[in-house]
Amino acid sequence: MNALRFHGQNDLRYEEIPIPQVGDGQVKVKPAWVGIHEWHGGANLCPTTPHPITGETVPLTFGHEFSGTIEEVGKNVTEYKPGDRVAIQPIIYDNTCGACADGLQNCCWSNGFIGLSGWGGGLADHIVVPTSTLYRLPDNVPLEIGALVEPLAVGWHAVKISPFKTGDVALVLGGGPIGISTILALKAKGCEQIIVSEVSKKRQEFAKTFGAHHVVDPSKEDLVARCRGLTANQGVHVVYDCAGVQAALDQAVHATRPRGCIVNIAIWEKPCTINTNDFNFKERMYMGIATYQVGDFQEVIDALSRGDMDPKEMITRRIGLSEVVEEGFRRLIEDKDNQVKILVRVGGG
Amino acid sequence: MNALRFHGQNDLRYEEIPIPQVGDGQVKVKPAWVGIHEWHGGANLCPTTPHPITGETVPLTFGHEFSGTIEEVGKNVTEYKPGDRVAIQPIIYDNTCGACADGLQNCCWSNGFIGLSGWGGGLADHIVVPTSTLYRLPDNVPLEIGALVEPLAVGWHAVKISPFKTGDVALVLGGGPIGISTILALKAKGCEQIIVSEVSKKRQEFAKTFGAHHVVDPSKEDLVARCRGLTANQGVHVVYDCAGVQAALDQAVHATRPRGCIVNIAIWEKPCTINTNDFNFKERMYMGIATYQVGDFQEVIDALSRGDMDPKEMITRRIGLSEVVEEGFRRLIEDKDNQVKILVRVGGG
Repeated sequence: MNALRFHGQNDLRYEEIPIPQVGDGQVKVKPAWVGIHEWHGGANLCPTTPHPITGETVPLTFGHEFSGTIEEVGKNVTEYKPGDRVAIQPIIYDNTCGACADGLQNCCWSNGFIGLSGWGGGLADHIVVPTSTLYRLPDNVPLEIGALVEPLAVGWHAVKISPFKTGDVALVLGGGPIGISTILALKAKGCEQIIVSEVSKKRQEFAKTFGAHHVVDPSKEDLVARCRGLTANQGVHVVYDCAGVQAALDQAVHATRPRGCIVNIAIWEKPCTINTNDFNFKERMYMGIATYQVGDFQEVIDALSRGDMDPKEMITRRIGLSEVVEEGFRRLIEDKDNQVKILVRVGGG
Repeated sequence: MNALRFHGQNDLRYEEIPIPQVGDGQVKVKPAWVGIHEWHGGANLCPTTPHPITGETVPLTFGHEFSGTIEEVGKNVTEYKPGDRVAIQPIIYDNTCGACADGLQNCCWSNGFIGLSGWGGGLADHIVVPTSTLYRLPDNVPLEIGALVEPLAVGWHAVKISPFKTGDVALVLGGGPIGISTILALKAKGCEQIIVSEVSKKRQEFAKTFGAHHVVDPSKEDLVARCRGLTANQGVHVVYDCAGVQAALDQAVHATRPRGCIVNIAIWEKPCTINTNDFNFKERMYMGIATYQVGDFQEVIDALSRGDMDPKEMITRRIGLSEVVEEGFRRLIEDKDNQVKILVRVGGG
């Protein structure tokens, strides 16, 4: 079968590999649509020594944001049958560590991801996964939208475990895919004041499309003054950092009210600096968020089915599996501002 | 009367100033004992332009940790009478800002402190304060201990608003006065596993005296390994940073379990650096703490009265008001490791 595999820094290959065989408690899935995200030539999560759970090393098949249709079920699988439409929750965890015991599989001390750390990936004609990774898609949620459940679950999880409550004012730093996912989650959870800080014109428009109430260009306007102006001079309740940029964080701290919280979702390229006095004098909080937990995928799917989130417009481009390197990852870098989600059609549907 | 006043950088003077007159809703207090803490020649909180609430600028009387006896009551004061023994909660707040409206007078946008920002201070023969600052001392709490309520309230508040719960393992960075205050609060709240990280031999002993269960010298032992070893390899639940040192924070992050929290109580001399991935991948939290809120002083006094905290041994030296500069502040710098709290006897008792 064909697969898109990561061999190392700047080395992604579209190549022929064997079809995986389905085992006990597993199903074989035909990936339908697969989301890809920015990837600057390296992939920190792809193991170069055997992964503690999968035992695999590079080359590894890419693709951790995907939907698909079940093709074949293994022994002892009774709750799924061929033809079932599913989204795949890709976290690989050992279920023996204390984090897993606490229900924090997303913080598992050995964790990995399908499509990054072994067990195949969505960017292939077939994949075999355990049934524990499967989330059934309702009839009114198309497979295309099913491929968005993973990025939507990131924003959903962030809002859910943050101190956000109805009536709060939220500031989202960055209008890229995760910023939009966070906006959609905030809207679904009833936030009536979402401020988005974003310098790119195109991303400002995206933020508005998805429901931001105020969009601020921090290179042209004083973000702190604007946030205070919108909150009787108190500052916002919660900030979601989906940008990972020092200058933005610095402003966000001052835009946050006493006991407010800054939630970091971004992957930063280097450590950040914080002025501890700004946290002490106003008792501000900072928290990091790791992907999603059990529960989040189902809640996102339910919200999609109810129509509480409509992420269709996030799909800015559709390409074929053989085009991923040139038309996918390259475009995500060169045409970044115009793209939210590029979906790869494997089985389609 | 005599007073110890701050005139500017490295300029503290023991001098004669007028006795303050008591007004409506105020009382005149004879300070009994006054705690002092490390002070490196400057005082950021002492206003050089008129303070928004007190309207005062330097020179200002020092002393914000103190107990005393009421000497005279102003008009409309019915709940206090001369002879009453009290501790003074020194936060100055405007009660009009949003932080105050939220009950966060400690985060008041204009806040200041008696003994730093105006309204006199404990290091004087007399002080006039509003009755809202007064907390009555029970018969079994001596005035000396009353002067410790302020630093004890800092640790108490930090533990109270942190996510600490019974059964949790706590790591305290630094065995100085605030570290000890935090240890005492943790003990009073039932913590059965307190780990203290401290390099000074003398402070290690103090930490043990006040109830630390494990004391680690991070210059000789791997703090992360020790914390993980004591927690089935998961890490501690809560860290209280009473040190404000980058190397200690770096270790503390790795010593913290998934969803664990680092509480900063320290005043850092410069910004700190954090590796956001360490916060994201394990969903760790960071929070800053500002002094204490309404409620904390009374709770500390109640805990002292019940015998849940015994801070007597924190008092390592007693001096007179005229000796404060030489025997007080200088010694706190030069003999730092041997001193926890130096108390200044004004009225005594």
